[in-house]
Amino acid sequence: MYRTHTCGELRMAQTGQQVTLAGWVQRIRKFGSITFIDLRDRYGITQLLLGEELNDLLDKQPLGREFVLQATGVVSERSNKNPNIPTGDIEIKIASFVILNKSVTPPFTIQDDTDGGDDLRMKFRYLDLRRNAVKKNLELRYAVNRAARNYLHENNFMDIETPFLIKSTPEGARDFVVPSRMNPGQFYALPQSPQTFKQLLMVSGYDRYYQVVKCFRDEDLRADRQPEFTQIDCEMAFVEQEDILNMFEGMVKHIFKAVKGLEVTEKVQRMSWEEAMWQYGNDKPDIRFGMQLLNIKSAFTKDGKLQANGELIAGADFKVFNDAETVVAIAVPGCAEYARKQTDELTEWVKRPQIGMQGLVFIKCNADGTYKSSVDKFFTEDKLKAIADAAGAKAGDLVLILAGAEERTRKAMSELRLEMGERLGLRKKDEFKLLWVLDFPLFEYAEDDNRWVARHHPFTSPKPDHIEVMIKNNPVIEKAAEYLKHPYANIKANAYDMVLNGNEIGGGSIRIFQRDLQEKMFAALGMSEEEALHKFGFLLGAFEYGAPPHGGIAFGFDRLCAILGGSESIRDFIAFPKNNSGRDVMLDAPSAIDQKQFDELQIKLNLQ
Amino acid sequence: MYRTHTCGELRMAQTGQQVTLAGWVQRIRKFGSITFIDLRDRYGITQLLLGEELNDLLDKQPLGREFVLQATGVVSERSNKNPNIPTGDIEIKIASFVILNKSVTPPFTIQDDTDGGDDLRMKFRYLDLRRNAVKKNLELRYAVNRAARNYLHENNFMDIETPFLIKSTPEGARDFVVPSRMNPGQFYALPQSPQTFKQLLMVSGYDRYYQVVKCFRDEDLRADRQPEFTQIDCEMAFVEQEDILNMFEGMVKHIFKAVKGLEVTEKVQRMSWEEAMWQYGNDKPDIRFGMQLLNIKSAFTKDGKLQANGELIAGADFKVFNDAETVVAIAVPGCAEYARKQTDELTEWVKRPQIGMQGLVFIKCNADGTYKSSVDKFFTEDKLKAIADAAGAKAGDLVLILAGAEERTRKAMSELRLEMGERLGLRKKDEFKLLWVLDFPLFEYAEDDNRWVARHHPFTSPKPDHIEVMIKNNPVIEKAAEYLKHPYANIKANAYDMVLNGNEIGGGSIRIFQRDLQEKMFAALGMSEEEALHKFGFLLGAFEYGAPPHGGIAFGFDRLCAILGGSESIRDFIAFPKNNSGRDVMLDAPSAIDQKQFDELQIKLNLQ
Repeated sequence: MYRTHTCGELRMAQTGQQVTLAGWVQRIRKFGSITFIDLRDRYGITQLLLGEELNDLLDKQPLGREFVLQATGVVSERSNKNPNIPTGDIEIKIASFVILNKSVTPPFTIQDDTDGGDDLRMKFRYLDLRRNAVKKNLELRYAVNRAARNYLHENNFMDIETPFLIKSTPEGARDFVVPSRMNPGQFYALPQSPQTFKQLLMVSGYDRYYQVVKCFRDEDLRADRQPEFTQIDCEMAFVEQEDILNMFEGMVKHIFKAVKGLEVTEKVQRMSWEEAMWQYGNDKPDIRFGMQLLNIKSAFTKDGKLQANGELIAGADFKVFNDAETVVAIAVPGCAEYARKQTDELTEWVKRPQIGMQGLVFIKCNADGTYKSSVDKFFTEDKLKAIADAAGAKAGDLVLILAGAEERTRKAMSELRLEMGERLGLRKKDEFKLLWVLDFPLFEYAEDDNRWVARHHPFTSPKPDHIEVMIKNNPVIEKAAEYLKHPYANIKANAYDMVLNGNEIGGGSIRIFQRDLQEKMFAALGMSEEEALHKFGFLLGAFEYGAPPHGGIAFGFDRLCAILGGSESIRDFIAFPKNNSGRDVMLDAPSAIDQKQFDELQIKLNLQ
Repeated sequence: MYRTHTCGELRMAQTGQQVTLAGWVQRIRKFGSITFIDLRDRYGITQLLLGEELNDLLDKQPLGREFVLQATGVVSERSNKNPNIPTGDIEIKIASFVILNKSVTPPFTIQDDTDGGDDLRMKFRYLDLRRNAVKKNLELRYAVNRAARNYLHENNFMDIETPFLIKSTPEGARDFVVPSRMNPGQFYALPQSPQTFKQLLMVSGYDRYYQVVKCFRDEDLRADRQPEFTQIDCEMAFVEQEDILNMFEGMVKHIFKAVKGLEVTEKVQRMSWEEAMWQYGNDKPDIRFGMQLLNIKSAFTKDGKLQANGELIAGADFKVFNDAETVVAIAVPGCAEYARKQTDELTEWVKRPQIGMQGLVFIKCNADGTYKSSVDKFFTEDKLKAIADAAGAKAGDLVLILAGAEERTRKAMSELRLEMGERLGLRKKDEFKLLWVLDFPLFEYAEDDNRWVARHHPFTSPKPDHIEVMIKNNPVIEKAAEYLKHPYANIKANAYDMVLNGNEIGGGSIRIFQRDLQEKMFAALGMSEEEALHKFGFLLGAFEYGAPPHGGIAFGFDRLCAILGGSESIRDFIAFPKNNSGRDVMLDAPSAIDQKQFDELQIKLNLQ
């Protein structure tokens, strides 16, 4: 062993002991003939004091930043204590040292606020990982992993490994494929998730399964998506939705407790998908703050019917509202005194292409009880007050109104709400609000193909009440424009998402476990019988041999860690992430391969 | 929840309680008007008693094997108790039941001794996994996983995930590759192990790393090799070989304790590679039994010189021994009375192509002190006695002698020793003998290419004393035939294997952490500077920035589980294994992919 102690553990209690430490030179300071070195390892930083007698050695073997040093000496009380670090009361009076390895000057400083840009840090990721900020993220990741495993183990779940070289059954996302040398012309696929395997395990009777497992999706990478990502993947048999919700809110609470020391005792709030869309314009609402949407006029059907008829704005000759499919408002607390410049800036904000609205209407609810609006000439003060009241605005608040096509406007208002929450400091990094969103539609309508697609995935069961609707009706959509009138449009799924601070951290469903219903589902998605058998014959087969009712959930482990770590970026929580082109710039991968590899695999390039 | 209890938990204490169970119908027996059903789930089997009043329902909804049943009733004491199962004292008097799902007749019986052949069981793996024998294996696998993680966690190791889509740097085994759609013409590789990443993590200061991780090798599959397999992968910084040996024999002992209840207190035995080859003919000796090799004559150099000069057989006119490079013997206890038929059979055994010897010489050490041999006419009884004594034979033992070319003969004797151990019942399934094999040669000589190859891998450090020999000498082998005279032939590696009952369960090494030594290693393996930089530039780069001394080990998780489970086959311990052609016969993977996938990946087939 190169050391007797780590750089994080020595205290006053050890003064007088001879110790040997090993680590990296973080900093060197000279005071006259004395040299101070901050020696760093995974566990902390300890100050070394090198007296005059070592100056000859230091001259012969000069030290530098990031040199690897082994040093022996006696633990001593510091005259000038540093209360900011746990070892700050002591220093080591060094008797001898050995340079275990040298370092050239790092391309950026190994500090929390480094001077290295993103590209440089990724290229030298092994140096970036030395920074305390990144280390804390990986430590948090490990703590979450450990806490999840412990909870699941205590609850009788078994970690069962599923294969990585499987069959390509692209449905939704693209598969990464792997040519098989031993089976020329054939390919494996890397799993997008262990979905079918965990269902087979339920058929096999392993009624509580989990895995912390890598998954792969060959998608165009938006910011903060990775081609390989990690899921906490779980499945249970003989359960209903309620059992799963209870089990997994228990898991997340356990993680909060273990990792953040937060005791969450109340039940996790629940909300239907319709409610979430209606009140927040979003199926993963951030409920750390209010500012719910007032639906003045809307094409969104709730409980099967249109709910917002535009009464509040009726009779006014304001073409923008009158022509709009949807008019929605939020009341922003305390912003009635926004200056023209500020409201103009907000208007520009909603007009950006990412939001895509034509404009923004506002009503200032002045402290004196008067109302002032950008549409004063169309609405009397009474009308403005009525709208503001309905939106829940109080004196001093600012009401923001958007109008336009249903989907875009609702989405825009959701974004605006989040933006205002952000600006007002209502999205606190250290506040964690969990939410279950339930009762999703089973199907979405794919305009391009005029067919249904599974909103969650093809293995999700309809609500028990809706199974018959699904079985009895022909899935074919006669008139594309009238797809909303098809009975399938109203089928709700036995599916649930867990939302944390406006991010979906987990999602799952009760699964189909009956062969006939699964076949109907494949047919509904436009799959021929032959295709369904070719792709999923093993699963349909398994359902013939006594498949139990089952369901599960998968948590996005990278995202969960990022949110718990107070970050928006999952890359900060992955040891060796890829960039937005799917490249590992440190390895320089992907890369060309040898002709011999092409020959053995019996493939060749076909570059366009 | 579909059940109040599992099928494994009800006892006499619960008699009188109303319970609901759910599970699979294992067996149905009719006694007059009463029906008994054995209901099975992951936790056990419970007997259900269906009285006469349910016969109508049973007629309308007939039950069958593997039907999924939910049944409610009262726990009652059994009149006819079954002491063989934990629930054998009770049964459930069923009031009502629901068939949750039906089953067609399974293609084989779901029992420990099933009637299903290997192919059928693999095709219906989801049914095979229901068998108790397979379930026990997966439970053991999970227990080993859990025990390893707990030990490593307690010892400050961190689970850090390394990437699966990396760079192809084939060296030794073939890589599986993955075409990149976003980077046309380029490929990722799946990792053969996280070797370079764990070393980078050491450079980054995460001084204790572990992962239970899938690895991939595209090799021709011998029996019991899988294209994807799992490693317990570990690395430590600031350590020497001794630290690693102590840490990981601790881990294996912890696993023994946690999984098998076995307390191993003594230090794990250690043996040099030379010693193992000399005494056992094998670098992973099974030390559950003796029968060490007597090296009568040998071309094997030990401590740098030839050690067996043939003195014991000198002077005899026996051409087979005289012409042989190597003559080795073992003393098989208690087999002196083998009949002619038995010695003939052994002779045939060593003449099989897998062993490949020309014949077998034996000496019977009779109980009366006489000696009888197949080579009586060449050796006096005194000479026979001298050989037998040297081999450690006692009265009643049988000495077996093989002669021939060094490598083949030594290997054959190793096989013969194992075979005799097996026949004599000396290789007990419930006995576990650990062994460290140390001091491997750093290099092997590759005849085909007339160059050195790394015996372990190119990142393994030579013994400290041998570093200079490596740096100072030119690796080029002038005369292929004289490679043994090259100084590199005698360089020993800082490498170690852990052997359990004759199987290598783990292997590792202290790594090179100096750029110049790593460059020399790549050069020794015949890699040009350019090639080394292209393939491993990131690692050479990392070694410039303060790489600490480090080393590690990887355990073959599948194999470790198999041995602990008393099996030779790793497939029995993998939930969804592949067959010897690398196929998953359940999924029917690998398989053809769509033209669209080829187009997007910009590759095409080039079938020969």
